[in-house]
Amino acid sequence: MNLSAVLHAPRDLRVEERPHPVPGAHDVLVRPGAVGICGSDVHYYEHGRIGPHVVRAPMVVGHEAAGTVVEVGADVDPARVGELVALEPGVPDRTCEQCLAGRYNLCPAVVFFATPPVDGAIAQLVAIDASFAHPVPAGLDVEQAAMAEPVSVGVWAARRAGVSPGDRVLVTGAGPIGLLAAQVARAFGARSVTVTDVSAFRLGIARELGFEGLDAREPLTGAFDVLLECSGAAAAFSAGCAALAPAGRAVLVGMGADTVSLDVALVQAREITVTGLFRYAGTYPTALSLLASGRVRTDVVVTHRFGLAGTDDALTLARRDSRSLKAVVLPQE
Amino acid sequence: MNLSAVLHAPRDLRVEERPHPVPGAHDVLVRPGAVGICGSDVHYYEHGRIGPHVVRAPMVVGHEAAGTVVEVGADVDPARVGELVALEPGVPDRTCEQCLAGRYNLCPAVVFFATPPVDGAIAQLVAIDASFAHPVPAGLDVEQAAMAEPVSVGVWAARRAGVSPGDRVLVTGAGPIGLLAAQVARAFGARSVTVTDVSAFRLGIARELGFEGLDAREPLTGAFDVLLECSGAAAAFSAGCAALAPAGRAVLVGMGADTVSLDVALVQAREITVTGLFRYAGTYPTALSLLASGRVRTDVVVTHRFGLAGTDDALTLARRDSRSLKAVVLPQE
Amino acid sequence: MNLSAVLHAPRDLRVEERPHPVPGAHDVLVRPGAVGICGSDVHYYEHGRIGPHVVRAPMVVGHEAAGTVVEVGADVDPARVGELVALEPGVPDRTCEQCLAGRYNLCPAVVFFATPPVDGAIAQLVAIDASFAHPVPAGLDVEQAAMAEPVSVGVWAARRAGVSPGDRVLVTGAGPIGLLAAQVARAFGARSVTVTDVSAFRLGIARELGFEGLDAREPLTGAFDVLLECSGAAAAFSAGCAALAPAGRAVLVGMGADTVSLDVALVQAREITVTGLFRYAGTYPTALSLLASGRVRTDVVVTHRFGLAGTDDALTLARRDSRSLKAVVLPQE
Amino acid sequence: MNLSAVLHAPRDLRVEERPHPVPGAHDVLVRPGAVGICGSDVHYYEHGRIGPHVVRAPMVVGHEAAGTVVEVGADVDPARVGELVALEPGVPDRTCEQCLAGRYNLCPAVVFFATPPVDGAIAQLVAIDASFAHPVPAGLDVEQAAMAEPVSVGVWAARRAGVSPGDRVLVTGAGPIGLLAAQVARAFGARSVTVTDVSAFRLGIARELGFEGLDAREPLTGAFDVLLECSGAAAAFSAGCAALAPAGRAVLVGMGADTVSLDVALVQAREITVTGLFRYAGTYPTALSLLASGRVRTDVVVTHRFGLAGTDDALTLARRDSRSLKAVVLPQE
Repeated sequence: MNLSAVLHAPRDLRVEERPHPVPGAHDVLVRPGAVGICGSDVHYYEHGRIGPHVVRAPMVVGHEAAGTVVEVGADVDPARVGELVALEPGVPDRTCEQCLAGRYNLCPAVVFFATPPVDGAIAQLVAIDASFAHPVPAGLDVEQAAMAEPVSVGVWAARRAGVSPGDRVLVTGAGPIGLLAAQVARAFGARSVTVTDVSAFRLGIARELGFEGLDAREPLTGAFDVLLECSGAAAAFSAGCAALAPAGRAVLVGMGADTVSLDVALVQAREITVTGLFRYAGTYPTALSLLASGRVRTDVVVTHRFGLAGTDDALTLARRDSRSLKAVVLPQE
Repeated sequence: MNLSAVLHAPRDLRVEERPHPVPGAHDVLVRPGAVGICGSDVHYYEHGRIGPHVVRAPMVVGHEAAGTVVEVGADVDPARVGELVALEPGVPDRTCEQCLAGRYNLCPAVVFFATPPVDGAIAQLVAIDASFAHPVPAGLDVEQAAMAEPVSVGVWAARRAGVSPGDRVLVTGAGPIGLLAAQVARAFGARSVTVTDVSAFRLGIARELGFEGLDAREPLTGAFDVLLECSGAAAAFSAGCAALAPAGRAVLVGMGADTVSLDVALVQAREITVTGLFRYAGTYPTALSLLASGRVRTDVVVTHRFGLAGTDDALTLARRDSRSLKAVVLPQE
Repeated sequence: MNLSAVLHAPRDLRVEERPHPVPGAHDVLVRPGAVGICGSDVHYYEHGRIGPHVVRAPMVVGHEAAGTVVEVGADVDPARVGELVALEPGVPDRTCEQCLAGRYNLCPAVVFFATPPVDGAIAQLVAIDASFAHPVPAGLDVEQAAMAEPVSVGVWAARRAGVSPGDRVLVTGAGPIGLLAAQVARAFGARSVTVTDVSAFRLGIARELGFEGLDAREPLTGAFDVLLECSGAAAAFSAGCAALAPAGRAVLVGMGADTVSLDVALVQAREITVTGLFRYAGTYPTALSLLASGRVRTDVVVTHRFGLAGTDDALTLARRDSRSLKAVVLPQE
Repeated sequence: MNLSAVLHAPRDLRVEERPHPVPGAHDVLVRPGAVGICGSDVHYYEHGRIGPHVVRAPMVVGHEAAGTVVEVGADVDPARVGELVALEPGVPDRTCEQCLAGRYNLCPAVVFFATPPVDGAIAQLVAIDASFAHPVPAGLDVEQAAMAEPVSVGVWAARRAGVSPGDRVLVTGAGPIGLLAAQVARAFGARSVTVTDVSAFRLGIARELGFEGLDAREPLTGAFDVLLECSGAAAAFSAGCAALAPAGRAVLVGMGADTVSLDVALVQAREITVTGLFRYAGTYPTALSLLASGRVRTDVVVTHRFGLAGTDDALTLARRDSRSLKAVVLPQE
């Protein structure tokens, strides 16, 4: 008995029984209490694929999960039963060159929730390697714990950008990732954080969080040390780069554009550094501590919640409601 | 009496008398023995401008210079008279934010040889701040010392790329900068250095220096940790980026393309870092030591030499002779 | 007319007239409104020397200063008259190897307030290079601005330690520097900050600021990623090092002990990094922004204030009152 | 049939049969062709322990090994049979915090050859995780490949010190590690490398390798950017630190002294950084490429070779012959 949200084909999601997972020796079995919906889930739902990753067989969706340990494998401390854990969704092989270099996020053999053919976490039960089920600090609820996943993207972005006190940070795109990354940047000590978007609704939330919110269609003034591009729009990246100060750093966080253009003279004359990120590595403890300290709030980002039976609604929310941000599925409801 | 090579207008270069420079209190007066011709000199000669930098008044050309100290300012150690020095051509203001941060190459008020309206160094005498006239190690001649300037570009590129032992380095473009940067990369301990170009002549020199030389029109195989783009061709940058391994780093060294295109999925999935460089900072002692140790050779890069009267020929050499690389003017001849 | 606090010999401080300073071309003339008393001022007052630095001629004391620009040199923007500025007390030569490398704090020719034979800032008027008179953000008063100096020590300590979110930071010593450094570490995103001291009074302030305060005589439990040693006690350093986690970093901030002992097996087995700091470089804008944002409070650190005539009392405060922290002299009163 | 060199008690080493190892699914079975003797092997032989690591049961010695793959586990590519491999002797658990951070050398659960109770590699056959059996580049023999272990220590030391072109490096101690580390530092581009020791024999080899060799009892002149302390002598560390230039970096490589003393004023005034190292992580490919390129020579370091039956002689060589450096055991002879 393991009711799960299974994607069979584009726009064909069914809540149906899946086998009860059996934890391996190093695994924990977890009862997910909250699973956030990410743009990638929506993309699989709408198109059945993301680039080379094609849903060829029915696949459980969802990878932003937290829940309670209900059983442990033979080699795992039995005291973990009952623990609230945030699930880091990608388990690398730990033997390849990338893993040994500490870049396990770049492991080519990673097993990642809800990336075909691997099943995701919107289910009543999931098994995961015990070291990727991170203990949740006291005071956080399961929904906040689930948000450790998108917060991790923000932490990784801030680390790759080297955000530190004194930096003026520009975040382009006030979707869930942008709003969380902006808060993370502030927690990293940014002197100022400016957020741009085209949506008045989203800018309103950015301002509610204490950021300067600017309409992305207006020209940028001022100089920034860091650009966290979270909109996926090539134009936002170009405008953001042009607003960087000497030695500025830009991180391509958002997906959307196939290519972006670099102004060579600009990148050279200001010695700007541009990089991308792929998921995250070693971020969960920090993400959870930022949440626990209240430096990163998720309550304004999670705008809608659904039971397991509502997964379909959760996946179509963004299409239906422009005043929504993040949907969370509560698989036990 | 200070015969100098003065650019009056595009393709109008005259060797004529200029006033005898008077060193300031912190300056040395230097008799340049060798001045390399850089692509920027050629560009000013041909077009009278580089982007926003326009030659509005007659300007002495040349900025890759070395020579002998013949006089010192009031606050400079008189023992420096007679010293062979390599001239770092850009003297920053040392008071701005960039200077105080150790990024003096990004100083907006820098005074740089042969960047309008500042006169350059193809002259019988030039004055320069004493701390930018670097003592030349024993064993180097004045022509090698002059090459500390383009070698510095290579050192800065290697530093910005973080070249270190174990790295597989790709250098696109086997012009003078590419050939020097490749040698610098090897001196930084690169495991392998591969050089691409479309010119068989240039590839021949690359191979003579011990590098793998590849025709830039052929597809690249293998993976690289570092790309030093020295050709200025957007296609070379794109092909080089696509050949980077996870966590690869690319540096835009060459000028030419207005924009280059970044493949977002590639930059993200491999967490590639792209940066540009603007001149260099703090590189001269290292560049000179690399030259003195023989780790960087300039003899195969300097293919032609001219007296002061031949400056015009030096500036048109590249246009006239596809089998040329770097021209050097000997201002005292 | 420039009444100043002049140290003539140990414990012989006189408030007396000094010549009206004439600002050089690049200088501003400032009327200091607040000058903090630092342990080094006290040490000169008590002993007439600090190591090799001997007060051989009467010297104005004080180097933690802020004030109002009343006059500018020929090359300085006249609009700065009236500006509230924090004075960075050490002006380097900007031409040496250290300066050009961005480490101007290590400049051997630095001219530093109240380090013999250079006069300090407890005076009605002082002149300083305009680029070391930092504009104070709106909302800060002159006393807070003066505290940008000790806050800078904290910023530099945090930078040298690489404090970043996720780090557990231990600060040994809850004097003014320790209490400011602890706040800076929190502003850099530290997951937790623990402060130790032997004084219940000081621990009380640490706790008032929200830190865990521990009696330094009790054994430390738990592991830390960063040690900021601010007590100057060799035993505190040793105990702190022993409490560092693998890859931990320790910074020797406090002065006092001549030597400290490193446990080789510990430093090797955990790959601990130890470093010292000497003043700071490039910290003032960040220090001021941390003060302006309220992330660093100075009100609990400045426990006593004196007029110019009370400088003697300010210098003996620590000796007289164990419940004091930082004294500030208001030279215009 | 697996003749092995087994330490039963201090100075009681027996070459005796051990069971034929059975490779696990991820392992390779290797026939070691050369195994270097390290100071730690000698220490276990003489004392039966190193600090907390006590030889409580008979243990095979040796951890600097290379050999030929003779069999592979179920999950390993069978094409690896016949491959010459260098064995990285410590296999971490890959699941702990240190491993996931890329610091697998600090893994508390590492299984390391010849660290009790784990058997080492002086045997006719050993099994090891396939990803820690590194392919040896063409041109290297098995003895050179075995030296990838001590070369790795040098690579890790150079990385932790951040050796880069322009650096003046001081290596204290011209034993095997010092002589290899000095070569590695040169391969990292060091401008100069100076080696000190008290043995004229060892200094002679240092000079033969092209380094400046100085008697460690003479005062040091000049300034260095990096100190690689390889002697284990506290006095060498102190003298080396005192000779560091501003921003100098020191690495404690050698073992021997229980504690070393830091001069606080020195460490602060010059902002010196001191760190230790524990083994290495991610160094084998680089170490092997440095050996293959000839940048690091082992022929002058390996002074004596023994067959398996001579292991006892190999372990007592250092005690018997002051003109010896590294002994290598050839377990198949």
